[in-house]
Amino acid sequence: MTYQQLFEFIKAQKSYLCVGLDTDITKIPSHLFVEKDPIFEFNKQIIDATAQFCVAYKPNTAFYEANGAMGWASLEKTIEYLNSNYPNHFTIADAKRGDIGNTSAMYAKAFFENMNFDSITVAPYMGKDSVAPFLGFKDKWVILLAFTSNTGSQDFEELVLKNEVKKLYENVLETSQNWADENNMMYVVGATKAESFKEIRKMVPLHFLLVPGVGAQGGSLEEVSKFGMNKTCGLLVNSSRGIIYASGEKDFAIQAAKEAQKIQSEMAKYLELYL
Amino acid sequence: MTYQQLFEFIKAQKSYLCVGLDTDITKIPSHLFVEKDPIFEFNKQIIDATAQFCVAYKPNTAFYEANGAMGWASLEKTIEYLNSNYPNHFTIADAKRGDIGNTSAMYAKAFFENMNFDSITVAPYMGKDSVAPFLGFKDKWVILLAFTSNTGSQDFEELVLKNEVKKLYENVLETSQNWADENNMMYVVGATKAESFKEIRKMVPLHFLLVPGVGAQGGSLEEVSKFGMNKTCGLLVNSSRGIIYASGEKDFAIQAAKEAQKIQSEMAKYLELYL
Repeated sequence: MTYQQLFEFIKAQKSYLCVGLDTDITKIPSHLFVEKDPIFEFNKQIIDATAQFCVAYKPNTAFYEANGAMGWASLEKTIEYLNSNYPNHFTIADAKRGDIGNTSAMYAKAFFENMNFDSITVAPYMGKDSVAPFLGFKDKWVILLAFTSNTGSQDFEELVLKNEVKKLYENVLETSQNWADENNMMYVVGATKAESFKEIRKMVPLHFLLVPGVGAQGGSLEEVSKFGMNKTCGLLVNSSRGIIYASGEKDFAIQAAKEAQKIQSEMAKYLELYL
Repeated sequence: MTYQQLFEFIKAQKSYLCVGLDTDITKIPSHLFVEKDPIFEFNKQIIDATAQFCVAYKPNTAFYEANGAMGWASLEKTIEYLNSNYPNHFTIADAKRGDIGNTSAMYAKAFFENMNFDSITVAPYMGKDSVAPFLGFKDKWVILLAFTSNTGSQDFEELVLKNEVKKLYENVLETSQNWADENNMMYVVGATKAESFKEIRKMVPLHFLLVPGVGAQGGSLEEVSKFGMNKTCGLLVNSSRGIIYASGEKDFAIQAAKEAQKIQSEMAKYLELYL
């Protein structure tokens, strides 16, 4: 998917919501256990119910790996279902990968060639050659961890570098712009860091930001939108638990749709205000 | 596995070799394709041929994920085979994971509970709460990325922090010692950084270091051993491609054993010299 296609879809949907598919076998409704693949069945129903309110889906690989090879098959079926039925939705493998070149190339094969995800989240710690193998695919995206939503972000991401006023994550934002531009790189910036969005936007005015941390983690959608939105929206705001576990009963998909719609309505308002 | 058990096994084997199972479907001998699971069959024969010369095995998850759910099944069979037949060998899931707490907990479930790996490599970028979920398992280990073997290590790992002479990776070494001690944490330090081992040993005198980069990446086993070894050896030196692809023919396991034995003989010498 291209930058422009993503922007057009955001305008059409009046939404920049990403639904996080952190599907936990211990949290899905019990009536699904008659299905051959309860995880996939859950995802399928969540996707069908929420697709009109969002522009992206983000399966979190940890939750699939926790079920072993069967879990990996659920992930493959989920992305195949998305690509076949919702080709306009942007897909994110939330995998936080990153390793030496020949290994990152294998991860790129797994997520881009085999599963045909639009994008993958990548950890920057190991530097350029650990990220580069993901950048060689047409219309595929790297979403690089910059300033994450968790408390541990203060341990290293916020460290200030010598002879600079810049923090490590700001250095990540700056340096990585030599590797790729806004057409194939995005950044993860946590919603719990809303006050930082102004400064971050000075450094990366055009890039899309993937923003986790609204909902269960306490970030404010209003502040993120106010300080983070640019002329092409430039935001994909993720909600996982708040949507997919809105109900643990048979009505889980209906309740998920309601939660997604609630966020989408708010987003439509912010798109009018700030775009 | 405990620190002491690992040290005893190193003395018994006269080796601190870790064999990296970066098993690439495009590189294994063609006669294995009659097997139901060629990747597992390759690993099984490599393991049987090299076990007497090494103390650890390190499957690299990228190479299994590149084959999808089938690849994940090959990984599961490989670790099951190791745990059943070589329970004294230390096992490392080279996965470079790390995410917010509830996600890291799912990765810990996948690698420690389900597959029963002894250890997992973890990226430090997201800080303490992204690492902590891996530390709650008895006799299981986190192997934290510190100073990696690739050229990209200069992009962020070597950045010098404000008001300090310390680089980011040195800060990772220092800060993470508040999270765990040498009994459940190790560090990745690349063999291509042999000149750094002296300084690193001042910061982490007791910890085991997992050292990739000998062989294909050009690091020197002699220098790593000379500058990196401590009183309990404290080193696990990895070789992947140099061993497992020593031959691409039917004799691949025999040639792998020869390469492993060559390294083990050198290691036996260094253990006499430097331990």
